[in-house]
Amino acid sequence: MMSIEERLDIHDLFADYGTCLDEDRLEEWLELFSADSSYKIVPRDNYDLNLPVTLMLCENRNMLRDRIVSLREANQFSVHRDRHLISNIKIKQSIESEFLVTGNYVVYQADREGSGSLFSFGFYDSTIIFVSEKPKFYSMMVVVDNWAIPHMLSTPI
Amino acid sequence: MMSIEERLDIHDLFADYGTCLDEDRLEEWLELFSADSSYKIVPRDNYDLNLPVTLMLCENRNMLRDRIVSLREANQFSVHRDRHLISNIKIKQSIESEFLVTGNYVVYQADREGSGSLFSFGFYDSTIIFVSEKPKFYSMMVVVDNWAIPHMLSTPI
Amino acid sequence: MMSIEERLDIHDLFADYGTCLDEDRLEEWLELFSADSSYKIVPRDNYDLNLPVTLMLCENRNMLRDRIVSLREANQFSVHRDRHLISNIKIKQSIESEFLVTGNYVVYQADREGSGSLFSFGFYDSTIIFVSEKPKFYSMMVVVDNWAIPHMLSTPI
Repeated sequence: MMSIEERLDIHDLFADYGTCLDEDRLEEWLELFSADSSYKIVPRDNYDLNLPVTLMLCENRNMLRDRIVSLREANQFSVHRDRHLISNIKIKQSIESEFLVTGNYVVYQADREGSGSLFSFGFYDSTIIFVSEKPKFYSMMVVVDNWAIPHMLSTPI
Repeated sequence: MMSIEERLDIHDLFADYGTCLDEDRLEEWLELFSADSSYKIVPRDNYDLNLPVTLMLCENRNMLRDRIVSLREANQFSVHRDRHLISNIKIKQSIESEFLVTGNYVVYQADREGSGSLFSFGFYDSTIIFVSEKPKFYSMMVVVDNWAIPHMLSTPI
Repeated sequence: MMSIEERLDIHDLFADYGTCLDEDRLEEWLELFSADSSYKIVPRDNYDLNLPVTLMLCENRNMLRDRIVSLREANQFSVHRDRHLISNIKIKQSIESEFLVTGNYVVYQADREGSGSLFSFGFYDSTIIFVSEKPKFYSMMVVVDNWAIPHMLSTPI
């Protein structure tokens, strides 16, 4: 059984997840993951068919950190800004101190001229653990419904 | 007065509602309704003007089950997949053990090639009861803001 | 430290905020603000650069009331209807009895023919106080990501 505080804290974790990405605070976003965590982005079709091909794969947090460092070097001036809406967060199961949590997302992007459009939607399939009483992502799989987007690969979703 | 657990459980019910539809688990979705429940989809204009015309009307759960069975037979291969975002969930009133609950929704659809777009948005106007301590929809009215969509009639929203 | 009730009540405040706007209950929406509250709408670029230019500025609730009265007189027949999705609500800080709360939003609009589209997205940056145990907005800044929209100025978001 999980407590009400844990339920609400898990919701807050997803709010932080989105906000850090939206505000381009990627280093802070990294802190939402546990030390031995994994992160990947998968097209919905591959997820349904259990195919191993990913759009992004970081098997541990160091790989994720490398990715962020190279993003910082490549994108001196980011052209688009993200806006995450995350809802339907559901704690499906808690096995000992591990929580299986899903949620749906949509991301909009605006350019520097203030024009915006739908960028991506799909769902999060995550495992969350509590480290020093704070929730952290132990694994995060982003499953993208509209995966046919050319510039999707570069940044986390 | 309702308890915090009841408030959170009602939020979870809406998360399940969306996820079951998104994952095409329609039979499981049906279990979110009480035995004597009703389900209808109404264009926003008709709702505002109190007109009786609906886009879908199931006056009890058997009708809803029939609808799902015929969907299964008609759509051997579903062309689109849904993604529900549900937010602004508000328990407006609780009369004895009945809760009047509203929420806003948006549904995106992706096709098999991974192209996605906005499908529908509007709100839910529902009555929820607790059966064996689990929340169930006793009535669900989906009010569609953008009702001028040709292929809207076939599936639940 | 804030209580669980306060956390949930703040979530409800945002649900009410969206619903009042969506249902064109602007006078009721005004009641969600404290007597000495401020309201403004800011383009994301100006927010980031700390520029003072706003899209709408009401420095107290009377100014906001005036705005609503003039909206009522100007728009006898509103052409568009809004639908707010608000998520990622996060209570970032509580200083004595003041809560700093952010949230992301997207607004869709439908016209009278039932055609709908994305209208605006961005985030809320608010201060919330409790007046007679009910949460009220003491300040609300709406930061618009896609600010290049010609008809954005007229109504609250």
